[in-house]
Amino acid sequence: MNKKKVSLKDIAEKAQVSTALVSYVLNGKEKESRVGHEIAVKIKQIAKELNYQPNYLAKSLRSGKTQTIGLIIADISNPFFANIARIVEDEAKKNGYTVIIGSSDETAEKSWDLITVFLNRQVDGFIIVSSENSEEQIHYLIERNVPFVLLDRHFPEIPTDFVSLNSFKAAYDAGSHLIRGGYKNIGLIAYQSQLFHMQERIRGYRFSLEDHRIPFRPEWLKEVGFNTIEEEIKVGIDDMLASEYAVDALIFATYRLAITGLKYINSLGLKVPEDLAIVSFGQAEAFDLYYCPITYVLQPMHELGKTAVEILIQKLKKPDSEKKQILMEAKLMARDSSRPKAPVR
Amino acid sequence: MNKKKVSLKDIAEKAQVSTALVSYVLNGKEKESRVGHEIAVKIKQIAKELNYQPNYLAKSLRSGKTQTIGLIIADISNPFFANIARIVEDEAKKNGYTVIIGSSDETAEKSWDLITVFLNRQVDGFIIVSSENSEEQIHYLIERNVPFVLLDRHFPEIPTDFVSLNSFKAAYDAGSHLIRGGYKNIGLIAYQSQLFHMQERIRGYRFSLEDHRIPFRPEWLKEVGFNTIEEEIKVGIDDMLASEYAVDALIFATYRLAITGLKYINSLGLKVPEDLAIVSFGQAEAFDLYYCPITYVLQPMHELGKTAVEILIQKLKKPDSEKKQILMEAKLMARDSSRPKAPVR
Repeated sequence: MNKKKVSLKDIAEKAQVSTALVSYVLNGKEKESRVGHEIAVKIKQIAKELNYQPNYLAKSLRSGKTQTIGLIIADISNPFFANIARIVEDEAKKNGYTVIIGSSDETAEKSWDLITVFLNRQVDGFIIVSSENSEEQIHYLIERNVPFVLLDRHFPEIPTDFVSLNSFKAAYDAGSHLIRGGYKNIGLIAYQSQLFHMQERIRGYRFSLEDHRIPFRPEWLKEVGFNTIEEEIKVGIDDMLASEYAVDALIFATYRLAITGLKYINSLGLKVPEDLAIVSFGQAEAFDLYYCPITYVLQPMHELGKTAVEILIQKLKKPDSEKKQILMEAKLMARDSSRPKAPVR
Repeated sequence: MNKKKVSLKDIAEKAQVSTALVSYVLNGKEKESRVGHEIAVKIKQIAKELNYQPNYLAKSLRSGKTQTIGLIIADISNPFFANIARIVEDEAKKNGYTVIIGSSDETAEKSWDLITVFLNRQVDGFIIVSSENSEEQIHYLIERNVPFVLLDRHFPEIPTDFVSLNSFKAAYDAGSHLIRGGYKNIGLIAYQSQLFHMQERIRGYRFSLEDHRIPFRPEWLKEVGFNTIEEEIKVGIDDMLASEYAVDALIFATYRLAITGLKYINSLGLKVPEDLAIVSFGQAEAFDLYYCPITYVLQPMHELGKTAVEILIQKLKKPDSEKKQILMEAKLMARDSSRPKAPVR
């Protein structure tokens, strides 16, 4: 560092007041110490002119507060999480908080790294989109009384604050919508994951069939691994189409699965929805620009992000406030990719 | 915090050695202090058993090193930056660094906030995708000897390390490709921005016309504001189509501009490329899934991100190493949206 750092003393000298007074004002404690309004304004003005940079690090060690939120998302390259990060940032900024972001790439190990790094950077609290097998980290945060809110995904067996989607209902609605449109052989491509929201999507899909008395066929459900989605989706779709009960409609449980699946469907020369109707979770520009706009499950992204920030800030103010566990409802946006089948004459 | 924090002293007692020795070992200085291998292993083992968490904050104050990189991107909700963030993270992790990310939303003010917050969190260095009017921040970092590398955008009048794209050449190639395909009236939709890379894209486009002796028409170039792109793109495209020299091809200077423009083109019922050929900067799944795959300027995203990390790490090791200023070449990926015009019979 070339320039000498401006200190409280420098400001005090220029304002002709005591260093303690400057400290009170710059820490927002002028009311407590009965400082006059005019002198407070003058001190802030001088601090600005001298380009005073408070030493947050030393300050953090004393007060333990940094006005910073650590946001851990599951995959920054997924537009759903990138957009939700933007919403969390905007909301946090409105409340005077800065957000630092890390991406766990859906691995528990990287999520652990980020939690450690952020704790060492003294974030006041966390908003976390959990990855699979990260329950231990959640228990760790609870034991240490670190304030946090889970976003988009939660562990039903661990009592935490969370905001997520009613995935069961959303998947049930997707299946029922297709059945009402005359589709009978409906497949689902999901991730192979123990995460609750993924299990709920599978359960909701299966229940929509059952509820409409359509017997489920094992080949209609394909659960693919995170790191092998391209190959596995191809095999899954091939199997579904080759089946005695060949699918006439397909639900994708996430955006990434849909994009990968649609590329393969295009390459097979299949027409949507004539050959195969489509409904997908996740919203994205790619769905709008597809030759046949894709029906999707609209997640209340803005509300999810905003509410997570609100709950966390409430928790930071009142650490003992009651747990908030919020399941939001998705809305099915019916478009051309799932239009009702023409009646058979 | 519920549990008492494990201290160096606790480990020392259990290992029956001095606290100083524990400190040496856990700070990786056993060689300097001639500690036996066996005792070093034992100390590390005990630290692990007791779940010892080093206080990086206090440690940072002493050593000034945190193995953390601050990445400031221009807009996290833009897939180009979200993907590049993922690449930077992966590369940094390979080198033992953790990345904390902030998004400036294309505003210099928010970028200042993030630089301040990250400096106070003691990042070792920065990788920055600059926003407009942020030159002052760059000078600030230079004056304070903070190591940083500019990514994707740079200021030609400020000598810094940077890795970005040869935008002039990329735009020239896009224009020339269309001209070779028989298109004559070629429009460009860009951002109204003084950022160098945007100015270079405009200059490259204009030079491609000039170089092929096509006189430039002012209505062919539309520069839209960041916050009014929807309205302005509509007006721009309307003007280009209503012109005496109505455009038969259109170049978009970024992904976001292309997505917005394509939605409007669809709503007008125009067919790509018969009514209007398209070339765009930025790569995205939406371009692949469009009914007519979009020709795009392939930016070497992986190389850009990887090289930025390499340069920064080199700088951290040798602060006085020579400046690296790297312009990478894009590659035009010709697809259906710009296929050559059928010859007029």
